[in-house]
Amino acid sequence: MAQIVESVKKLTSESIIAPKGFSAAGIHCGLKHKKKDLGMIVSEVPASVAGVFTTNAIKAAPLVLTKETVYTNEKMQAIIINSGNANACTGTQGMADALQMQQLTAEKLGISPQLVGVASTGVIGEIMKMDKVVTGIDMIQPGHTLENAIDFAQSILTTDTVMKNTAYAVEIDGQEVIIAGVAKGSGMIEPNMATMLGFITTDANIEQKELQALLKKTTDTTFNAITVDGDTSTNDTVLVLANGLAQNNPLTPEHPQWSVFEDIFVKVAEDLSKMIAQDGEGATKLIEVTVEGAITDEEARKIAKTVVGSPLVKTAVFGCDANWGRVICAIGYSGCTIDPTNILIKIGDTMVVEKGEPIPFSETELTAYLKNHEVKIYANLHQGDGVGKAWGCDLTYDYVQINATYRS
Amino acid sequence: MAQIVESVKKLTSESIIAPKGFSAAGIHCGLKHKKKDLGMIVSEVPASVAGVFTTNAIKAAPLVLTKETVYTNEKMQAIIINSGNANACTGTQGMADALQMQQLTAEKLGISPQLVGVASTGVIGEIMKMDKVVTGIDMIQPGHTLENAIDFAQSILTTDTVMKNTAYAVEIDGQEVIIAGVAKGSGMIEPNMATMLGFITTDANIEQKELQALLKKTTDTTFNAITVDGDTSTNDTVLVLANGLAQNNPLTPEHPQWSVFEDIFVKVAEDLSKMIAQDGEGATKLIEVTVEGAITDEEARKIAKTVVGSPLVKTAVFGCDANWGRVICAIGYSGCTIDPTNILIKIGDTMVVEKGEPIPFSETELTAYLKNHEVKIYANLHQGDGVGKAWGCDLTYDYVQINATYRS
Repeated sequence: MAQIVESVKKLTSESIIAPKGFSAAGIHCGLKHKKKDLGMIVSEVPASVAGVFTTNAIKAAPLVLTKETVYTNEKMQAIIINSGNANACTGTQGMADALQMQQLTAEKLGISPQLVGVASTGVIGEIMKMDKVVTGIDMIQPGHTLENAIDFAQSILTTDTVMKNTAYAVEIDGQEVIIAGVAKGSGMIEPNMATMLGFITTDANIEQKELQALLKKTTDTTFNAITVDGDTSTNDTVLVLANGLAQNNPLTPEHPQWSVFEDIFVKVAEDLSKMIAQDGEGATKLIEVTVEGAITDEEARKIAKTVVGSPLVKTAVFGCDANWGRVICAIGYSGCTIDPTNILIKIGDTMVVEKGEPIPFSETELTAYLKNHEVKIYANLHQGDGVGKAWGCDLTYDYVQINATYRS
Repeated sequence: MAQIVESVKKLTSESIIAPKGFSAAGIHCGLKHKKKDLGMIVSEVPASVAGVFTTNAIKAAPLVLTKETVYTNEKMQAIIINSGNANACTGTQGMADALQMQQLTAEKLGISPQLVGVASTGVIGEIMKMDKVVTGIDMIQPGHTLENAIDFAQSILTTDTVMKNTAYAVEIDGQEVIIAGVAKGSGMIEPNMATMLGFITTDANIEQKELQALLKKTTDTTFNAITVDGDTSTNDTVLVLANGLAQNNPLTPEHPQWSVFEDIFVKVAEDLSKMIAQDGEGATKLIEVTVEGAITDEEARKIAKTVVGSPLVKTAVFGCDANWGRVICAIGYSGCTIDPTNILIKIGDTMVVEKGEPIPFSETELTAYLKNHEVKIYANLHQGDGVGKAWGCDLTYDYVQINATYRS
């Protein structure tokens, strides 16, 4: 096992094109004032595809189209993404526009439209300026340089302040296998999913069925374990393309190195999730909540997410206030099985509650700890073996500022 | 019917002591720096009592005590309330302190402790400064003047900026019956319940069983239909005392004027709920969301509450931004049965969405409308007969400021 772990390496040139056979591009086509707003990822060969999509009953046209594309085909070769307009609540015109984006991308690349995914993010309810998009798709030129990958990562952002990239390599069957991910997040991040777009590329050889199962399972503990504001968007999409060019033997749970592959896959998803949470609108801090001793893993995750989603916890962390009362209160209203007399809570390494009652701690030390950019909260319910984590961010003046003025 | 409606009057001297036989007081005993922090309501005679309490699994000691008192006795004659300390997560000492408050109040008034309710609101997890409370209970002198009532209404506030009082009178069986209410709200307002305390007094003659059923039913459409930040507190309590001094015939659903009594009871609860929502921490506006055409009333209320609780809707209203996309998005993630192609949305009187798609409107007019202190949002799902309302407030810089610094 030790040997296997050692063979995993995090790539410093984190990039969506690190796996073999992927190219990308990002340009400004005119949907936003100045910033890049159109991106494309292309694989040299059709890739196994997996996808997870918003649970919102209101679904954007490109999401409806791409979901159907993923579910009816097992392969995807290219993804076209625009930011600046969500193409949601845009009726039949919206669906026609999404279809046109799919069609034009296919024509440009000389592949079937059934191999093209479409994703959009931005304002809801405005008809796409398709003249800009048509020109954009004509102009965009996917390439293999780090610059191309950066252009892409920037082109999918909305109110994000930083790009979100990660990549890992591991040797499987004597071949180097790379998994890379890129995402955008920011507001409306309450997955199941939120206006989060995530794209994961890998040169691993893996069938669609295995890939979809792995993505689904991983999503529960990563993308669905983050929250910025509890709003679940109309456009959330995570797509994974696995093009097989690493030429490892097909990966299934029976493959001797499956767990290594699964580990780095989860790591990519977790890295992206944490980057999204940390860059929540207006956020100054990443909050990580770990819950142990719940009845089930599911309840542990639900409790962790309730705590990290509480506006009162979020503002307390922003204010560096060790107000653990808000933590225990959120645990209490999580709707899960709680024994109030058996709860232990730590903020950082400092125990603040034991058996449901406050224990003395140094306010000065804890206030100093809360000034860190990453704040950890731990709760043990002493009721079972359930464990779970969730990530979020503090709630700040800037969140209000950004969202009070976003559209105008 | 018209005659009955005409006989209802809203009292301008809105006050908890307006019904016959009630007195009240509020003083500063030392739990807060300067403001009043100890209040008492007393009825001349034991009153029928009804109560609803937080659904949070973590319950404050006074709430546990009062809940038991309400459920094991059918009468209550006095309530002692402190602000500044929630007496929550305070273990056996906390319960001993709540019991002592009950005991001392009973001794002072010469009544059984079983006739005394106790409520607390404030910081969680700090042991009560009982020396201050003991002196306070000794000093406090309930009286019948408007000043006494104002003192009381002030004594229960925490971060509230205004008192919340209301009262109505109606003639029943030839006797004037008055129902009055007082409340505190502000942060952690996500009922089912939230750090909301509500006290309703009436001189109506009504049995405990009928009163409890009426309160329970009313709570669903009033106190439980408001949200400030989605946090449900450990201390939320609404208590109703009905002392019968109006000498009407006992009120039951069979009484010919039951519906009139029910109407003003609901009106009192709704007035208090709206005042709590409007005075949410940092709020500048009351938001009222009305949903029609849902599958059931329950789903309509759930959708209305999801919309009014969305941080993105709340910030948009604060910013006077007619961003209906956030409204439809929140409807979509409410978890209720939604047909995306059949939704109609109005902001004020302006229709912005029909059959799920945007329709043109004047941005200038709608921005002007959104500058009002009360903003109404209406949605019709065209799926059934379910109707429901919810109230909330905008999310502002001040909410963040108040909650980032509350305890320090």
